[in-house]
Amino acid sequence: MKQNFYKIFFLSVLLFSFLRAPAQPAALVFQSDFGLKDGAVAAMKGVAYAVSSELRMFDLTHEIPSFNIWEAAYRLQQAAPYWPAGTVFVSVVDPGVGSERKSVVLKTQSGHYFVSPDNGTLTLVAEVLGIGEVREIDEAKNRLKNSEKSYTFHGRDVYAYTGAKLAAGTMTFGEVGPLLPAQVEHLRYQKPERIQDEIRGNIPILDIQYGNVWTNIDRTMLQSLGVAFGDKLRVRIWHNQKLVFDGEVPFVRTFAEVGISQNLAYLNSLLNFSLGVNQGNFSERNKIYSGAEWNISIQKIKN
Amino acid sequence: MKQNFYKIFFLSVLLFSFLRAPAQPAALVFQSDFGLKDGAVAAMKGVAYAVSSELRMFDLTHEIPSFNIWEAAYRLQQAAPYWPAGTVFVSVVDPGVGSERKSVVLKTQSGHYFVSPDNGTLTLVAEVLGIGEVREIDEAKNRLKNSEKSYTFHGRDVYAYTGAKLAAGTMTFGEVGPLLPAQVEHLRYQKPERIQDEIRGNIPILDIQYGNVWTNIDRTMLQSLGVAFGDKLRVRIWHNQKLVFDGEVPFVRTFAEVGISQNLAYLNSLLNFSLGVNQGNFSERNKIYSGAEWNISIQKIKN
Amino acid sequence: MKQNFYKIFFLSVLLFSFLRAPAQPAALVFQSDFGLKDGAVAAMKGVAYAVSSELRMFDLTHEIPSFNIWEAAYRLQQAAPYWPAGTVFVSVVDPGVGSERKSVVLKTQSGHYFVSPDNGTLTLVAEVLGIGEVREIDEAKNRLKNSEKSYTFHGRDVYAYTGAKLAAGTMTFGEVGPLLPAQVEHLRYQKPERIQDEIRGNIPILDIQYGNVWTNIDRTMLQSLGVAFGDKLRVRIWHNQKLVFDGEVPFVRTFAEVGISQNLAYLNSLLNFSLGVNQGNFSERNKIYSGAEWNISIQKIKN
Repeated sequence: MKQNFYKIFFLSVLLFSFLRAPAQPAALVFQSDFGLKDGAVAAMKGVAYAVSSELRMFDLTHEIPSFNIWEAAYRLQQAAPYWPAGTVFVSVVDPGVGSERKSVVLKTQSGHYFVSPDNGTLTLVAEVLGIGEVREIDEAKNRLKNSEKSYTFHGRDVYAYTGAKLAAGTMTFGEVGPLLPAQVEHLRYQKPERIQDEIRGNIPILDIQYGNVWTNIDRTMLQSLGVAFGDKLRVRIWHNQKLVFDGEVPFVRTFAEVGISQNLAYLNSLLNFSLGVNQGNFSERNKIYSGAEWNISIQKIKN
Repeated sequence: MKQNFYKIFFLSVLLFSFLRAPAQPAALVFQSDFGLKDGAVAAMKGVAYAVSSELRMFDLTHEIPSFNIWEAAYRLQQAAPYWPAGTVFVSVVDPGVGSERKSVVLKTQSGHYFVSPDNGTLTLVAEVLGIGEVREIDEAKNRLKNSEKSYTFHGRDVYAYTGAKLAAGTMTFGEVGPLLPAQVEHLRYQKPERIQDEIRGNIPILDIQYGNVWTNIDRTMLQSLGVAFGDKLRVRIWHNQKLVFDGEVPFVRTFAEVGISQNLAYLNSLLNFSLGVNQGNFSERNKIYSGAEWNISIQKIKN
Repeated sequence: MKQNFYKIFFLSVLLFSFLRAPAQPAALVFQSDFGLKDGAVAAMKGVAYAVSSELRMFDLTHEIPSFNIWEAAYRLQQAAPYWPAGTVFVSVVDPGVGSERKSVVLKTQSGHYFVSPDNGTLTLVAEVLGIGEVREIDEAKNRLKNSEKSYTFHGRDVYAYTGAKLAAGTMTFGEVGPLLPAQVEHLRYQKPERIQDEIRGNIPILDIQYGNVWTNIDRTMLQSLGVAFGDKLRVRIWHNQKLVFDGEVPFVRTFAEVGISQNLAYLNSLLNFSLGVNQGNFSERNKIYSGAEWNISIQKIKN
């Protein structure tokens, strides 16, 4: 009798012990074009913290140029693959706030979640990580209480709130809202292609801090042309079809292989073909910037 | 006998299990005019981390323009209401460091704590969240050990240290120091007022990232004038009594309701009357900035 | 018999309870010259988070001017002493990425860890906190899986990864890699010295946010000259041996002791001799900047 009581008691203690184990929330990572000068980011984090004080919050960047959806797409794709499956990204770059674009959560095949307006921001993570499911956020359920009268801060009232509930595990993905067709709004950009002895591609982004120029041409494509470290390359760059750079550049493993202030080509951290200057700024020196209208061609120079 | 031993043992395990439950610390949110280029913010966080490694620390902003107490006051009031009661804010914008201003902790009626020099920084949170109690920080007790010889970094040695102990729960509010009269140093600014068919108010701040102009005129006051979405408004702005803007602006729910580059009036995320340009910068285009000397008038245009 | 079973059971529950206690990880603090505009910092944090979701991560600064090793050294030394022993700092300012500099972890005598290229970044923390042991990072073991093909992002693939494992306690310091001689690459800079009635020193850094000029002359050295608060000082500053400032400055406890826009000398938060302007910018007004080539002299003016 008494023994039974103890048995039940032991098991209760054990069960209780397990239950008290803090349910490990997923990381919550914010991106926006809000900058860091005002209280907007902190308001989003306050809303998320009120959902669960256990959340681990991080910032991707809040310095996306205002309304630059392409750069938002690029930054997500640059950082997201380094976070574990289950991580929830909230991205708020939204020129059409209040217009007809849908508010969605994309679950990628890799198991990452992206809470964002469906305005093109999800273009690249959808390509790279694969589209799993897309759900429209049901604002009747997933909106900060008493925020219905505010028309413009979806980032705080809907996106941060929804992302926090998802990361904290207080809501399942299914509870986000109705399932949409497995597709996202897609920005058009030029894909890399090989044309005979030449590779053509695009300059999606600058490595802005250092002034390096990154392309969408990857290592595999370079290898298909027989390009190896140590080779000299002819590199041409066009802005809106106008040739603005035509030069010979060595393809090296590391910046230190060329002299200070020398141009060089290298593989960046995403293993894409890039251009830099040892301890200098390739972009500023050559007036090369990024975007859909910037194209590049690479050819191997025969010895 | 033995049974009693076990009973005691069980209860001990259970008690121990409860006690080990991490006491949930409150969030600790920092604001300053230190910028992010040096180690000052990190030194504050190091001091707080040494108080308790369990603290969850966040940043409101560290980009308050140097010594701009008004903007510090505004940013606190913008973000604090979105954090739960119990959150501790440490704000260090302190042109008179070392002068006669007191170092205080304000507990608002909403249950938030604000650790700051009492130099006007608390003006708006005191108004919006209500003054509960004000205590002067007793530096004899609430100052980082061995920091007595330093005369200038109150932010680290007193404010971060005090805020951390309060958030971690290793000190009660009463232990901060002696109770002061329930008031804080108050900055003067023009309140919104209705004069016949016109509302007058102030431009306290810009939404700097987008160049939107925010006012202190709220939705209720607009409604008292019968202003509704879709109305056209006459908006005039004065700088030091000099008229610098006089135009007709549509009052809309969302930026997307007007063409690109068109002026518009809207309710911002605080539900205050604001001016913007769809995908543009109202402030720069019209040379409108913020501060006590910027006044605005709104009138409804009859159809 | 049965009693024995229970005894074992109790002890198991107790043991389990202890084991489940989250091993308290050390703080992980990042510094770099990456800026906050792209996804590089977030990629580092993602890698660290994947090592352990329990890690508490902080930023020292990511605004070190590109490739400025001296400033990286200075910022580490400015903030690190305020963090508890065991804290792991990851600093990535690396002009010679991929060149012959070693990747190391310095354990200081104070018990702090610094993960960095050994390129001079560790100069000042080695002096101030003392060299305990230096280990070279064994990249065969301490490199993010599948990152071997990337040649340029050591910050993410090696430094963040190694720092995270060390902070999380999933790796001991001994497992970092082979022990090196107890020394680090050392940048040369002028030490403060007393020459008769004069103290000479260097301007290592500006307090950039406020435009204050900091020196490497500490309080003790000032006292050796008999300098006390209230004294008037003759201050001279040379840039590359050329005299660029020669003025009389009062030595005060706090900025508020002089009128607005007046020059003043004070002890900064590191208790070093510094120059400022009450609510102004000493550096910009007088064109005084920082670096090895900026020297200063202080003399007491006799009444």
